[in-house]
Amino acid sequence: MTSARPYYVPVGNEEQVFKAAYHQGLSVVLKGPTGCGKTRFVEAMAHDLGRPLITVACHDDLTTADLVGRFLLRGGETEWVDGPLTRAVRDGAICYLDEVVEARQDTTVVLHPLADHRRQLPIERLGITLDAAPGFGLVMSYNPGYQSVLKDLKDSTRQRMVAIEFTFPTPDVEEKIVATEAGLAPDRAADLVRLGQAIRRLETGGLREVASTRVLIAAGRLIAEGLDTRDAARAAIAGPLTDDPSVTRGLMEMIEVYLADQ
Amino acid sequence: MTSARPYYVPVGNEEQVFKAAYHQGLSVVLKGPTGCGKTRFVEAMAHDLGRPLITVACHDDLTTADLVGRFLLRGGETEWVDGPLTRAVRDGAICYLDEVVEARQDTTVVLHPLADHRRQLPIERLGITLDAAPGFGLVMSYNPGYQSVLKDLKDSTRQRMVAIEFTFPTPDVEEKIVATEAGLAPDRAADLVRLGQAIRRLETGGLREVASTRVLIAAGRLIAEGLDTRDAARAAIAGPLTDDPSVTRGLMEMIEVYLADQ
Amino acid sequence: MTSARPYYVPVGNEEQVFKAAYHQGLSVVLKGPTGCGKTRFVEAMAHDLGRPLITVACHDDLTTADLVGRFLLRGGETEWVDGPLTRAVRDGAICYLDEVVEARQDTTVVLHPLADHRRQLPIERLGITLDAAPGFGLVMSYNPGYQSVLKDLKDSTRQRMVAIEFTFPTPDVEEKIVATEAGLAPDRAADLVRLGQAIRRLETGGLREVASTRVLIAAGRLIAEGLDTRDAARAAIAGPLTDDPSVTRGLMEMIEVYLADQ
Amino acid sequence: MTSARPYYVPVGNEEQVFKAAYHQGLSVVLKGPTGCGKTRFVEAMAHDLGRPLITVACHDDLTTADLVGRFLLRGGETEWVDGPLTRAVRDGAICYLDEVVEARQDTTVVLHPLADHRRQLPIERLGITLDAAPGFGLVMSYNPGYQSVLKDLKDSTRQRMVAIEFTFPTPDVEEKIVATEAGLAPDRAADLVRLGQAIRRLETGGLREVASTRVLIAAGRLIAEGLDTRDAARAAIAGPLTDDPSVTRGLMEMIEVYLADQ
Amino acid sequence: MTSARPYYVPVGNEEQVFKAAYHQGLSVVLKGPTGCGKTRFVEAMAHDLGRPLITVACHDDLTTADLVGRFLLRGGETEWVDGPLTRAVRDGAICYLDEVVEARQDTTVVLHPLADHRRQLPIERLGITLDAAPGFGLVMSYNPGYQSVLKDLKDSTRQRMVAIEFTFPTPDVEEKIVATEAGLAPDRAADLVRLGQAIRRLETGGLREVASTRVLIAAGRLIAEGLDTRDAARAAIAGPLTDDPSVTRGLMEMIEVYLADQ
Amino acid sequence: MTSARPYYVPVGNEEQVFKAAYHQGLSVVLKGPTGCGKTRFVEAMAHDLGRPLITVACHDDLTTADLVGRFLLRGGETEWVDGPLTRAVRDGAICYLDEVVEARQDTTVVLHPLADHRRQLPIERLGITLDAAPGFGLVMSYNPGYQSVLKDLKDSTRQRMVAIEFTFPTPDVEEKIVATEAGLAPDRAADLVRLGQAIRRLETGGLREVASTRVLIAAGRLIAEGLDTRDAARAAIAGPLTDDPSVTRGLMEMIEVYLADQ
Repeated sequence: MTSARPYYVPVGNEEQVFKAAYHQGLSVVLKGPTGCGKTRFVEAMAHDLGRPLITVACHDDLTTADLVGRFLLRGGETEWVDGPLTRAVRDGAICYLDEVVEARQDTTVVLHPLADHRRQLPIERLGITLDAAPGFGLVMSYNPGYQSVLKDLKDSTRQRMVAIEFTFPTPDVEEKIVATEAGLAPDRAADLVRLGQAIRRLETGGLREVASTRVLIAAGRLIAEGLDTRDAARAAIAGPLTDDPSVTRGLMEMIEVYLADQ
Repeated sequence: MTSARPYYVPVGNEEQVFKAAYHQGLSVVLKGPTGCGKTRFVEAMAHDLGRPLITVACHDDLTTADLVGRFLLRGGETEWVDGPLTRAVRDGAICYLDEVVEARQDTTVVLHPLADHRRQLPIERLGITLDAAPGFGLVMSYNPGYQSVLKDLKDSTRQRMVAIEFTFPTPDVEEKIVATEAGLAPDRAADLVRLGQAIRRLETGGLREVASTRVLIAAGRLIAEGLDTRDAARAAIAGPLTDDPSVTRGLMEMIEVYLADQ
Repeated sequence: MTSARPYYVPVGNEEQVFKAAYHQGLSVVLKGPTGCGKTRFVEAMAHDLGRPLITVACHDDLTTADLVGRFLLRGGETEWVDGPLTRAVRDGAICYLDEVVEARQDTTVVLHPLADHRRQLPIERLGITLDAAPGFGLVMSYNPGYQSVLKDLKDSTRQRMVAIEFTFPTPDVEEKIVATEAGLAPDRAADLVRLGQAIRRLETGGLREVASTRVLIAAGRLIAEGLDTRDAARAAIAGPLTDDPSVTRGLMEMIEVYLADQ
Repeated sequence: MTSARPYYVPVGNEEQVFKAAYHQGLSVVLKGPTGCGKTRFVEAMAHDLGRPLITVACHDDLTTADLVGRFLLRGGETEWVDGPLTRAVRDGAICYLDEVVEARQDTTVVLHPLADHRRQLPIERLGITLDAAPGFGLVMSYNPGYQSVLKDLKDSTRQRMVAIEFTFPTPDVEEKIVATEAGLAPDRAADLVRLGQAIRRLETGGLREVASTRVLIAAGRLIAEGLDTRDAARAAIAGPLTDDPSVTRGLMEMIEVYLADQ
Repeated sequence: MTSARPYYVPVGNEEQVFKAAYHQGLSVVLKGPTGCGKTRFVEAMAHDLGRPLITVACHDDLTTADLVGRFLLRGGETEWVDGPLTRAVRDGAICYLDEVVEARQDTTVVLHPLADHRRQLPIERLGITLDAAPGFGLVMSYNPGYQSVLKDLKDSTRQRMVAIEFTFPTPDVEEKIVATEAGLAPDRAADLVRLGQAIRRLETGGLREVASTRVLIAAGRLIAEGLDTRDAARAAIAGPLTDDPSVTRGLMEMIEVYLADQ
Repeated sequence: MTSARPYYVPVGNEEQVFKAAYHQGLSVVLKGPTGCGKTRFVEAMAHDLGRPLITVACHDDLTTADLVGRFLLRGGETEWVDGPLTRAVRDGAICYLDEVVEARQDTTVVLHPLADHRRQLPIERLGITLDAAPGFGLVMSYNPGYQSVLKDLKDSTRQRMVAIEFTFPTPDVEEKIVATEAGLAPDRAADLVRLGQAIRRLETGGLREVASTRVLIAAGRLIAEGLDTRDAARAAIAGPLTDDPSVTRGLMEMIEVYLADQ
């Protein structure tokens, strides 16, 4: 779909583990916080492995039919239309289920025979069972920090997976990412990364989530558009992180401190 | 749709932030209480940017199909009809999701690939992925004062947004708005604004929401129609704010005090 | 629909407030207990203003489609059929949503753009937005005494409304109403009203609702049909108000006292 | 449907109250325990008034469409089929909603405009409002002893009703009923009634419901078929009343005592 | 369907009570634990009475349409297909609702007019009411030991029934049943029955259900197939009764004791 | 489907018990933890018995129609399509319901007449009852360690089953399995098994499930692909077993100890 390699800077051995699992036909689960680069990573892996990538954003109401396919009525005839998982199985694509813990467990259960040694997708509505085409790979992601205990990934699903853990990149890597993605001078990117790391060191009592690489890039892009640095940080960092007035005040003071001299 | 600029008086730098985010292709979330002018603001921005505006009032039962589209049966054939979000993506319009926290999280999840660097809308039912047309913008609003913790905006959605906070306008701006919108003499508008501000200073234990600019305008319009000032304030301000008899009595006394000499 | 003015005796300035709001295009909410005459009032206002009245009895399962319309399959074609709200918007009628707190909040949210300055009804299923015809008016009622906190009217809906409070009429007005509606001699109507007012003075611990004007009229009609006064009061007043044996006994004694000499 | 008057023996003035309410166009609610003759009473009243009777057994899943009607697909065309309530409204029949508290409140709300002075049935799906034909009457029943507080009849529904209370008949009336219905000699019917009344005098801690006239008749019919009296009482009275072993033992002893000498 | 009488050994007067109730047109409810022979009993009764038997296994999602029938689309026409209850009503068959407390109460409510003096089945979707053909009989079963209080049989349903209680057969009868059904020598059957009775004498704290005749037969059949007696008892008796390791150990010891010398 | 016998190493007498039950027409339930080989066992049994195997992965939303079949609309006609259970019944296949406690109880109730002496599948939608073809067998599995008490297997379902308990294989058997399945040298497989057994000896407070044979094989396959032993164990064993940072640290230390010298 895209011919240039998506911009991804590796942090550890995540690329080797992914590729070993892929070559062994093992499924992969990516664990890590929102906005740390999991989606980019899968895009880069699919590029390196030369496989098409089919991404499914999971959610509460995702049904098995949304993954596998359904009958549509056309010209008085019912016609079967493959879902994204079935397309990936037939085409030997990599299927990426983003935020899989959001999906209902009954939806993820269709993944079992795909994930284990059978590598098969039974499509009950058609009365057939597909063998996955060579090259097919199954990747899922979730954020272990979310406290959605009730919808946690089922053990029998997890045991069919190889897990790779993601954290935020190191400061120098993150500066490079923010500068590249926002089109910002390196020193201004470095200021934003210092602010982000200071926020991550806070006790997160009043914050729902720490400042991700993603919000630092957003702030950088507002600055590139001509906004004052502090206005940009307020709009792209403080605003999305909290609605609490006192926490907001605290973030505003940090913004003053870390971005004062610009 | 409307050729005159909608009446909107800026309070701070909200117009610059909005336009910088828009030009960077970043989505915007408007935070603020009911009735403080968020809808008007978006109408004015769409006018300034020369883009059509498509508004969706969010609610509990809003489905992904309501946003993206669905198949309708016509003449024995199923025919796809775009939803408002899809129309905005195809036409490069600004799509405004009003009170987005009312929507179920599974509905907002379709917004992720639109809100991040991909700017794509996957339409599973058609088996296609649309790239957003140039000019497309995504705007959402919510009221952080509502205590609907359970339906709060998902972090991964929030981190894809630039936030702009709204509060009620300053007294002089609000007087101008009430006078203009209700067709009222400036001094009578000033009385209503003083009453509104007094109510906002109250402890809000018995009040579900403070007196918004919107209810002050409604009172002004009843006065313009010939109702007694206090009758208008009772019907348009006290009545909508509470059902509690003792709180009602307190509001009635304030109405007597602030609107006595008319 | 009816050419004679519906029988309604005003209690205060409710008719002026209603008409001022209507002429200003503001929506109206009627607050008050069951059986105090809200429905009659709206019928009289529609008559005075010369507009057709479309009434919708709200309930738990009222869907947006029930208000706005839906597609029906006819002769192999889907055909759109307007709902009552859409008909009122197109025809410039007054639309009365009776007991609106019974409806789910997601249903009432379609009323927002109709209730504010836009006066528009977006019909997502048709992909169109209707401007309300001149004369359109939106009226809702609810009973603030019901403790259905969870389904209380949403603030953003309430703030778009002008409120009129209703209580039971004064004794002389109520006597006139009971006599007229039941076809009863004034003194017998007066006895029923005295009984009703005594019941309203009770602590309502064992009673679910006090004796409304409506049940007094029902008792009057049984008397007019030839039933003994006390038998009528038992069947039309005590029976509907409680299932509790001891509360029933108390009401029976009050009936003996207030209706003894007949 | 049946030309002989259904067998019903009046207990008090219930027949006069019913007929007065009917002639005044008031709806009637019958309150009383299971098995005391409410259904028979309505059959007798419909016979006396010369109106057809349409009975609807209410339950949890009864939808508005079950009462009012629905579209069915026939030969590629949708065809409207009236529900029982609509048939009663068109034909001027008496419509009897048995155990109405079982129905969801949203279902009963369609009854409001039928029950009050309007006597109209709005059929939203057809976009029409029917005026009830002369002779139409609305009757409901429920058992106040059931503790289904959550589904209790809505006040605004109750206030539109005239209530008639039912209890079990007096011993002599009940003996006549049991003998007639079971085809049993009067003295054997009397024994069963004495047993039934003794059970009704018990504290009902272990019994879910007291012995109704209906179970006494059932026991009588087993005796008429040749079963031993005590075997019949065990099968038709003790068995249906409890599953508790110790309560069962108590009932068995009472059966021995009251039916010993046969 | 079967021409030989199903193997059933009576325990008490259950056959007489059933036949008396059947001849009187009274419905029958069979109460008793799982696996004690209720299904066999109904099969034998239907055989003796020369009526066809239609069995419905009840469950949570059994709808009224599953019992009564539904429209199916065939060749562009909707065509009505009778459900099992309707077939039984039309054909004068015995309809057996197995484990009726599993069904939702709203489903069982359609049985009322069939179970009382009317013997009618109203089919709302067809707008007709069927009179039961001669020979129709209604039989239900449930297990009073299940603690599903919330779904317990409704009183108004129970009072329309004659109840027959079932327990496990006496040892000599049970030995005969196990030997016959499993094709086992009498003494080996007697050993299994002694084990079963010992388990039934246990406090059932750790056991969900006692050892039924059905599991004893299953063990017997494994022995007849050549398995070691104790292996058979472990697989067919201990395994199904508990998942608790310590309870399992206790059962294993009992198996050793009672089946040691084989 | 597969002509070579699936690789399965027996632990006890499970093969004899399965075959005896199958020949007696008794259903079988396999109890045991995730990843211990239940699916492989059924595949091997079906191979030995020469019967086709139809596997259904059970889940929360599995409906009776998913098992039994449904009508699909084709060319304007409804056409019945058998579900997997019906296919197994018609073809005399072995039907394996994997993780049956995930299914709703109402779904499993259709299995009763198949599991008892009737061996029949009633298909209500077709109005027919199928007799199971010779060779049909019913097998279910569940994990008793899951604490989903509410969805536990119904007693009347369990009593129709013969139970076989599974645990993890003994070390020597497990080493053989891991070496064979991962294509690993025996001593490296032995290291992984020693690590797995050490983890199983831990108190499982912080672990959701112990290390199954399945995760040991996955680690082995990553090693066979060239990954460092400890990286493989982290990705395939520690990652899937926990999200807890301190538990993760503990597992990492164990990995260092048990896999240090490689």
